[in-house]
Amino acid sequence: MNNNSPHYAVIFSSQTTEIEKSEYMEVAERMVALASHQEGFMGMENIQNEQGFSIMISYWDSLTAIKQWKKNTDHYAARKKGRESWYKTFTVSICKIEHMYHFASDGDDNKSQVI
Amino acid sequence: MNNNSPHYAVIFSSQTTEIEKSEYMEVAERMVALASHQEGFMGMENIQNEQGFSIMISYWDSLTAIKQWKKNTDHYAARKKGRESWYKTFTVSICKIEHMYHFASDGDDNKSQVI
Repeated sequence: MNNNSPHYAVIFSSQTTEIEKSEYMEVAERMVALASHQEGFMGMENIQNEQGFSIMISYWDSLTAIKQWKKNTDHYAARKKGRESWYKTFTVSICKIEHMYHFASDGDDNKSQVI
Repeated sequence: MNNNSPHYAVIFSSQTTEIEKSEYMEVAERMVALASHQEGFMGMENIQNEQGFSIMISYWDSLTAIKQWKKNTDHYAARKKGRESWYKTFTVSICKIEHMYHFASDGDDNKSQVI
């Protein structure tokens, strides 16, 4: 087991409505910056397409860290605004990572079994 | 608990090299079609950007179903080719879904706690 491996992932997949992109992007970027300073945050992957579909995966060291982030006041306000205005649909999945394998073509592979 | 909720997610995030996109896309589409016919397959989300970064999440009803899919001969060949030619880096995470929440702006929300 690798102690640097995250133990939990939060998958957030969303489809935005026809929105004012500038405000949404500004808040989204602020939330990413804020999350990255949370205790237990271990990284993030984020991708969106031209049609307003996006997947954001954040990695955490514990369920407690995820719960703390959910309680963060600014994050709460952003999620409220998201439900009211920005998202047509979204799904949040909180997942326990059981195995993680990383491949790099330069040979820097590693395999970790978290549990 | 909702019996229709998936119990496991496989997160596959990848960065391709400078590749022959047509062959890669043809194989990727074939793998998606093949996965969707596997026992225990419950859905997929897939997104890529112009820079060759992509996230594919497949949802499954059990760890056994994921293992069976990993053993599939065509899938094995595609993964081998992927390591040899297509991917600069990739990470595969096998995750147990502990909570899943779906929001829809038309009011079709649902919450499931899988364990």
